[in-house]
Amino acid sequence: MLTLAALAELVGGDIVGDATLTIEDISDLQSAGPKHISFFANPKYKLQVAQTRASAVLACEPVEGASCAFILCREPYVALAQVAQALHPQTAPAPGIHPKAILDPSAIVDPTAVVDAGAVVAAQARIGARSRIGSGAYVGAHVSIGDDVLLHPNVTVLDRCSIGHRVILHSGTVIGADGFGYAEDKRGVRHKIPQVGIVEIHDDVEIGANTTVDRATFGKTTIGAGSKIDNLVQIGHNVSLGEHCVVVAQSGISGSTQLGNAVVMGAQTGTVGHIQIASGVMMAARGGATHSLHKPGLYSGYPATEHKIWLKAAAAQYELPNLRRRVRALEQQLVETKRVINANPPDCDCKQRGKY
Amino acid sequence: MLTLAALAELVGGDIVGDATLTIEDISDLQSAGPKHISFFANPKYKLQVAQTRASAVLACEPVEGASCAFILCREPYVALAQVAQALHPQTAPAPGIHPKAILDPSAIVDPTAVVDAGAVVAAQARIGARSRIGSGAYVGAHVSIGDDVLLHPNVTVLDRCSIGHRVILHSGTVIGADGFGYAEDKRGVRHKIPQVGIVEIHDDVEIGANTTVDRATFGKTTIGAGSKIDNLVQIGHNVSLGEHCVVVAQSGISGSTQLGNAVVMGAQTGTVGHIQIASGVMMAARGGATHSLHKPGLYSGYPATEHKIWLKAAAAQYELPNLRRRVRALEQQLVETKRVINANPPDCDCKQRGKY
Amino acid sequence: MLTLAALAELVGGDIVGDATLTIEDISDLQSAGPKHISFFANPKYKLQVAQTRASAVLACEPVEGASCAFILCREPYVALAQVAQALHPQTAPAPGIHPKAILDPSAIVDPTAVVDAGAVVAAQARIGARSRIGSGAYVGAHVSIGDDVLLHPNVTVLDRCSIGHRVILHSGTVIGADGFGYAEDKRGVRHKIPQVGIVEIHDDVEIGANTTVDRATFGKTTIGAGSKIDNLVQIGHNVSLGEHCVVVAQSGISGSTQLGNAVVMGAQTGTVGHIQIASGVMMAARGGATHSLHKPGLYSGYPATEHKIWLKAAAAQYELPNLRRRVRALEQQLVETKRVINANPPDCDCKQRGKY
Repeated sequence: MLTLAALAELVGGDIVGDATLTIEDISDLQSAGPKHISFFANPKYKLQVAQTRASAVLACEPVEGASCAFILCREPYVALAQVAQALHPQTAPAPGIHPKAILDPSAIVDPTAVVDAGAVVAAQARIGARSRIGSGAYVGAHVSIGDDVLLHPNVTVLDRCSIGHRVILHSGTVIGADGFGYAEDKRGVRHKIPQVGIVEIHDDVEIGANTTVDRATFGKTTIGAGSKIDNLVQIGHNVSLGEHCVVVAQSGISGSTQLGNAVVMGAQTGTVGHIQIASGVMMAARGGATHSLHKPGLYSGYPATEHKIWLKAAAAQYELPNLRRRVRALEQQLVETKRVINANPPDCDCKQRGKY
Repeated sequence: MLTLAALAELVGGDIVGDATLTIEDISDLQSAGPKHISFFANPKYKLQVAQTRASAVLACEPVEGASCAFILCREPYVALAQVAQALHPQTAPAPGIHPKAILDPSAIVDPTAVVDAGAVVAAQARIGARSRIGSGAYVGAHVSIGDDVLLHPNVTVLDRCSIGHRVILHSGTVIGADGFGYAEDKRGVRHKIPQVGIVEIHDDVEIGANTTVDRATFGKTTIGAGSKIDNLVQIGHNVSLGEHCVVVAQSGISGSTQLGNAVVMGAQTGTVGHIQIASGVMMAARGGATHSLHKPGLYSGYPATEHKIWLKAAAAQYELPNLRRRVRALEQQLVETKRVINANPPDCDCKQRGKY
Repeated sequence: MLTLAALAELVGGDIVGDATLTIEDISDLQSAGPKHISFFANPKYKLQVAQTRASAVLACEPVEGASCAFILCREPYVALAQVAQALHPQTAPAPGIHPKAILDPSAIVDPTAVVDAGAVVAAQARIGARSRIGSGAYVGAHVSIGDDVLLHPNVTVLDRCSIGHRVILHSGTVIGADGFGYAEDKRGVRHKIPQVGIVEIHDDVEIGANTTVDRATFGKTTIGAGSKIDNLVQIGHNVSLGEHCVVVAQSGISGSTQLGNAVVMGAQTGTVGHIQIASGVMMAARGGATHSLHKPGLYSGYPATEHKIWLKAAAAQYELPNLRRRVRALEQQLVETKRVINANPPDCDCKQRGKY
């Protein structure tokens, strides 16, 4: 529970209303009740502000007709994140290694870190300050984990991979499984190419549940600082993501493809391997890049094209059977038209060539 | 091993043949052998009934020319489920907590429940009667699990989520990972919005392997009673599924989307976020809903449309290059036709305006 | 570290250059340094051979202008796999059962096998010579695991499934979860059909991370010898893969579908259930088979068709709005053309019927 004054100070905002109000929780405009704070960032919800039962609303400016208090700030949605974090502080467990955690004697765990029951930390692994290794998580040999990292239960980080600071990995995610690489001989037998590289995850990355990031064949697969990856995503070997990229659920980035900075891949998207996706590219859901995209902008479709072009084609696709009928009709009419003309040919006596 | 008489009683069916036959197992018509029971629900397999080596067949009515016995019943496929369950009773392990399971002292486990080796049950979790927590499964703090629930090995249920009665969760599935929510500031940095809601799974739900159901930002993500979800499915934060929904493998339901009752999502389908899918909607495989679907019925395609419309467009898509050629030919012919007409223009001496 | 002579002998190749050179690691042409060996299999990288800093290159024949040594061999990429394996030998851990592994007393583990900390091996399971069960992996009751098998951490193999020799299963993969089978009654309630079959994985199969292979309803789901499956793939119940198949990431094979030998399914592909995919079929990324494919060859698109046909249609799709405009223009022009003709009708005085 915090006062409106405390929250306004936190987000650097100005109060319109009673600064002594106490706020207990956060909610969306419609389901908010008293002692809740909500937010207004999208003009289409203006009416909901007037009707909300929330005690206060984070907004750029006050909304006419609203009875709630306001905290005015430039980026209400960003302020929401800060307020939510303040109202729901991560409960830091007491540091230490649970007696039922399993640590190799050569692992180096910061005394302020937490290793939960059933977690396994292998030889020579290092775990930084205030990091937490959840139950059933596996930290492989020679893995390096930075400070303030959270590995949720049943995460797997395999040998020699490197995790930066303030990284969050959700349950079931696998970092550093072998890349999918074989040499096929003339009989069709595939020989495994040892995957001897690693995965390097930079600071402030968050990766959702049951996602897979494969280790490089040689060298490393890289996830740039601040990037956010959703659930069930596949990141192939030797892929490189720049900083502040976003990859939404069930997308796949094929081997050796390089994403610049601030690339956004919508849900269920994909890319072929060995291509470049320029900084600032946004791929709408289901899009699939079959060649490099060198210009920032919004892309859609498979093969991916400019979103505007896709939008028209997607709308038109269901008219295709009708269009085919129209073409058939045109063909028949043109045959008929020609028949008529031929019945009245240009070399009839009265024709005046050259008049046009 | 059960007699035909016992099975007929179980499914409320009538026997045609020898009621004292013993049935040992169940099989499909083609691979069945003696002492097997099979089923006949799809007319297209009528010939297989005549040829089957099964001792008995579940069917609506006897099939001419067949040498096997029959159990006649209204819903042979439903009867099959009952018979299979009777012939393959779930072997209930002895209740109790394996000495190598790890339970927080504050967890409350029903004395008839089973907690397997290597499972972890966190503080304040509750586990109901006859439920089983498989090896390596994780039950988070304050999680509530009903009666007769089966968590297969290596399932993860995170803090505060709620699981009803008779729920089955398959291995690798993650319930309650954080929803994918960030507030992007003007520099492109994403601030995590704490995901403080839960997941609530109602009675008789079954969820396949390696599926992810994210917790709500605020409030809850809900899976309605009787719903069945396949493997590798993504259910976003604040999604709500009604009762008896089906979501087939590798589909994704984006955040805050609401499905009514008895919605069926085929394999590899998807929906955008914040839309409504009406009760009775069926989405064929690969379909993707980009806006709300308010009418029950069968939909396909991306963006999703009526299945019949999609079917024609999908068939026509590969004629598009040919259609383009035909349009080009028409254009050329029309140019030629005009040339001919212009060579014999309407203002030639003999023209009789107004005659038509 | 190995001499060039030793590597040449390993791959059965001929040396061009100094056989006493020592090679420490393997790398691609561009990033290689001294004491590295690289490979040249794709003519498009010829220039990179001339510029590489690698000490030696595996190739079919020497490249003019290159300063490196060569090992000449018929299949350089296959030789690469052998060389990489030799330079990065799998470090075989000391055999034995970690004191923190959990084994049922009835499990039979070969004395040369390794069971890591936190792994669980259930009743009557058998583990062959030199196989390794990673931390947190679960081997169910009556599971049979052959020789030289590697189960990475947090793999799940459920009851009664059978794993051949030299199989590799990556972290998070689930073998033998229940198939997705229900009998729907007239009220829309789904009754679970017990999945009493198994999964049988033959020799030399490798399966990526977080993939799911469901057990058969009756009988078995089969993965043929030498097949390679990538991450996040779904293999439905009763599916059968022949030998040397490849299934790339995020693909799904629906229940009871049968793949012949050497079938290649690209990334994010799918098939409906109960169909046959002939030996030698290759499905390009995103393709979806909606009916059996009886002829080998390359297929694409949804519904899948011959790749060449799809390629043209995919390119043409974005011209559809323009094509529609052209058809509209044709229609208008034809109306106009008819108007002109009608103003100068064939029954004008000067018409000479039959002249053409």
